[in-house]
Order: sequence, then structure tokens, then C-alpha cells
Amino acid sequence: MTSYSERLNAAIREKRTPALVGLDPRWDALPAEVRGRRPDGERGSYSDRAEAFREFCCRIIDVVAPLVPAVKPQAAFFEECGHWGAAALAHVIGHARQAGLIVICDAKRGDIGSTAEAYARAYLAGDKPEAAPWGADALTVNPYLGADTLQPFVSTAVARGAGIYVLVRTSNPGAGHFQDRRTEGEALFECVAQTVEELARGDATGDDFGPVGAVVGATYPEELAALRLQMPHVPLLIPGYGSQGGTAADVAGGFREDGLGAVVNSSRGIIFAYHRAPYEDRFPAKDWERAVEAATHDMIQDLADHTPAGALRRGCP
Amino acid sequence: MTSYSERLNAAIREKRTPALVGLDPRWDALPAEVRGRRPDGERGSYSDRAEAFREFCCRIIDVVAPLVPAVKPQAAFFEECGHWGAAALAHVIGHARQAGLIVICDAKRGDIGSTAEAYARAYLAGDKPEAAPWGADALTVNPYLGADTLQPFVSTAVARGAGIYVLVRTSNPGAGHFQDRRTEGEALFECVAQTVEELARGDATGDDFGPVGAVVGATYPEELAALRLQMPHVPLLIPGYGSQGGTAADVAGGFREDGLGAVVNSSRGIIFAYHRAPYEDRFPAKDWERAVEAATHDMIQDLADHTPAGALRRGCP
Repeated sequence: MTSYSERLNAAIREKRTPALVGLDPRWDALPAEVRGRRPDGERGSYSDRAEAFREFCCRIIDVVAPLVPAVKPQAAFFEECGHWGAAALAHVIGHARQAGLIVICDAKRGDIGSTAEAYARAYLAGDKPEAAPWGADALTVNPYLGADTLQPFVSTAVARGAGIYVLVRTSNPGAGHFQDRRTEGEALFECVAQTVEELARGDATGDDFGPVGAVVGATYPEELAALRLQMPHVPLLIPGYGSQGGTAADVAGGFREDGLGAVVNSSRGIIFAYHRAPYEDRFPAKDWERAVEAATHDMIQDLADHTPAGALRRGCP
Repeated sequence: MTSYSERLNAAIREKRTPALVGLDPRWDALPAEVRGRRPDGERGSYSDRAEAFREFCCRIIDVVAPLVPAVKPQAAFFEECGHWGAAALAHVIGHARQAGLIVICDAKRGDIGSTAEAYARAYLAGDKPEAAPWGADALTVNPYLGADTLQPFVSTAVARGAGIYVLVRTSNPGAGHFQDRRTEGEALFECVAQTVEELARGDATGDDFGPVGAVVGATYPEELAALRLQMPHVPLLIPGYGSQGGTAADVAGGFREDGLGAVVNSSRGIIFAYHRAPYEDRFPAKDWERAVEAATHDMIQDLADHTPAGALRRGCP
């Protein structure tokens, strides 16, 4: 069995970039072609929307699969379409894995004991996609319930060659409301980070990374750089680049010198590039896939130019 | 539109008990009859299991609907059966609402901004079950991401006459790992409680309760009693009674004097009573529904005898 960090790092090296494409389908932002030419205001049935989300995400996957190591579908938007959306999410995950992509399912699950085990078995397939109904490589997990509730996720991840990303420092404006509360000088998110590092270290494999990662927002660059040092065995998932305001310079501190250690997510900035500057002027709406491709190339170049991830390109043609 | 707290309190008064039945279907614990007479070790396909979970939960609902005000399906066990399980969960929620029960979907969701809105729209139907694909009255929510990420849930809840229950003090052994961290003498869970009280107070309706509730475990009775006083406008959801070790005396502090203010959950202790003491000796496995009924009656009596919820029975025949 190949561990999650070995597979993730192999994919990052092969594609020579840590760019992660977030699959956040939103009905009102879909190209008219994919919406079945329904006007913006008309939402369609749950099954219509789920089918449109499935098609949209699979076509994005076909565009970005040669370019990036991983994609991150956001479960919430699929769940908004009921069980039709749940089936579409499973299909999208399967399509991405068949295309050779690492899939991080962003569902932010968390519960106690045997309930946490059920979530882990539902999402974490690791190196065998058929091992779970939603056959992802990795899952995002919420730590509020305590370290004992992370353990069932870690156990399943280790057993199946999967990974988890624990929320440490999120990218939203109010992230600090609870996460910054200090006890004897140490913030809550630093305490969570210490727990995550301890969980990751014990099962570290290739390149010294363990199966337990951390979500740390690009919107807090100082905390990101400090957390990279505090959690040397922890792969990072960095949201907040692009539409949320984080720049390549902001995420630079999330990497090791060799360019490993983090994946950087962009969702809207890539998948809805066709109606955002500067792409909306270059590509007509019907060419939305070309806008996705251009935005992905631009993000890859931006990260290579302004972060240690540029090291992944050195010595290559 | 009728608010969540008005509907919940009306149901509690009508049934004269705060007992909440948790629907946590686990394949290995299902009666053989429901498992299609498969032996314990044989798990069946995802769709076989989802269909068994659907049947099992609907039959429990038929037994307990005349006795209790509410049920709490646990999303994780359904999600473990993939999209078949997702469809079964929607069916179970619909069946419970048709039976006149309040439905609290225990999915512990949480995310930022528009993603939180998507989760809210997926689960919170309020007084119109058809308003959401999983048409629950209320949803459990995780606060780690910050107060700004609770607001989209509150807005949808208020607009639809639905409710949320924010995790404050969970019932697991390691709950205090992060929740007990103190800043200037105040624990993190007390800080979360203060936020929850502020969110609830602004929209308080019947009986002075707002649409924002709190999850507080029966396994920490002192904290429970203090939190009841700290959050006068917040309805409580108390897990941990029964199988997890909490007693009726432990949950007594969660109520107001009039018997309102909390619902107390039991899952395994009721739904799998047929193979637990003292019911396994009284009911053969084929009579598992009679064991569910007996265990429900016993829980109702226990809460009436040892908590302020006994006030709900006074003056009644």
C-alpha cells in the first residue's frame, strides 16, 4: 500500500506544482450551456442541478487533470441538491481519480467514537477508490470535539493509505473568534496544531510527511509561516488564495525549501474564470473551458514565481 | 410562520416529555429480520444496507411517534452507505415529519460564508418540510470556524422557522481537550456558550427561547447546570444519557423549573434495546419493536421522576 503523502508528493512532483483546483459548483455561476440554457433566476429541480454540477465538474477535471496534482470538491454544494447531489459528488470523485488526480473531499466532518468511524469509512478510500462509497484520497475534518475524535479518522486513513486535513486556522474574516483565544500565551489554533503534529509524526512516511494534514488559510500569512515550522510532518491545505484575497507571496511561508509541504487551493478564481477579470474579455462564455485552462496556467506560474514551489520546476525542460 | 422553539415546545408539552430518540442505524446491531436474515458478518451492498436502515428507522418512528416529541437521525451512518444512504436519510426524515415528529438532523456541519449557506439550505426546512432536500426542523452545527460562520445558519433558520444546535460541550471522554482551554478563567466552551446565547436572544419567540440551541453532554452534569443558567434563551440538546453513562439525575440541571429548555437523547439504549439488559430477557428478537416501546416508556418515566421535566406531567390525567 502506498501512503497518502507518498502519492500526494509524487503527484506534486509529476505536475511540478502545488496548485489545487476547488470544485465549488454554484448554480447561478454556471455557464448557460451547462445550465441547459435556463435563465439565471430559474433553478431547476434538484436532479437537474445535480446533473449540471456533475457535468460541469467532470469537464473541469478533464481540463485540469494534465496540469495539477489534485482537486477539492466541496460537499456542501452537492448536498444542497439532496441525494441526487450526493450521487453526483461520488461520480465526480470517481471521474477525478480515473483521471489520475488526488481527490481531497472538503466536507469538514467530525463526530465522536463510532460515529467518526462511520464518516471515515464513508469518505476515505486511500489508494483503492472502491474502498469507500465516496472514494476520496483525503477528507477535511473539524477538531472542536477533541483529539480523541480525530483518532478514528487517523486509524482509517493509515489503514487505507488515505489522509485527513484538520482545520487549524481557517481563512474567513472571523476565524480568530475562537481560534485566537490564548491560554498562557498560546492560541487555540496553535494547540490544535500541536495535536495535529503529534498525530502526523507517528505515521510519517515518504518525504517525512504523515497522513494528518492541516487547513491553514492564505489570509493569515504570518500564522501560516509559523505553523509550517511548528508542524514539520504535516502537509498543509491552504485555502483563501485568489478570490478570498490571498496572494502567492502570502502562501510562500507554507512550503518547505524543496517546494513540498503544501497544496494551494483556488476555486471560483479558476472554475468561474470565464466571467471574471482578466479572462472574461479574452474568452466568450461558450469557451469557458479555455478560461479554466488559462486561469490554471496563470496560478501555476504565479506560485512558481513567488513561492518555494518554483523549486519543483528547476532542472526541468 | 411558526418558529422552531414554538413548535418544539408545543411538541414537548403535547407528549409531556423531553425524551429524544436518536436514530443511529448500525448494520451489525440490526435485528436479523431487518438485515434480510444475513448473518452478522455479511454486510450486503450499500443499497441493501441503506434499504435496511430506512426500514429499521421508519419502523422505530412508527413505534415512538405517539410517545416522544422528536427524533435525531445521525447522518454519518447513512452516509456510510453512499448516495443510497443519503436517499434513505431523506426518506426517514420525511417519514418522521409526516408522523408529526420534530426532526433534528445530527450532521455537525460547519463551513465559511456561502458554503455554510449551502449546508443551511440543504438541511433546514423549518415548518415547511419541502423547503429543503433533507427537510429537517433543526441541524447540529460546529462552531470552530468562528461566529461569522454560524450567521448563515441562523439567517436561514430564522427565515424558515428552523433551528440549529451549536456544539458547546460534547459528551465524549476527550471533550475537554480543546473545549476546556481557559483564557482569563473562562473556558473555550463558555465563550462559545456566550456567543450562542447572544445569537439566540435576538430572535427569541415563544417561551423566551431562540432558534439557536446548544449541544451539551449529559456526561458533564456540573457544566450542564451552569450552562443552563448562562444561556437562558438557548434550547439544549443533551446527548450522553443511557449507553454513554449519563443518568436522569445528571441531566436534571439542563431544564428550567417548568420542564422546558432541553431535549435528552438516547440512541442505542432505545433502538437496540432488544439485545440489551433488561429488555433482551423480556422480548425475543422478533419483538424488537416492543423492546423499543418499553425502553422509550422507561426513559420517559426516568426523566419525569428525576428531572424538572416531571412538571410537564402535573395536572394531567
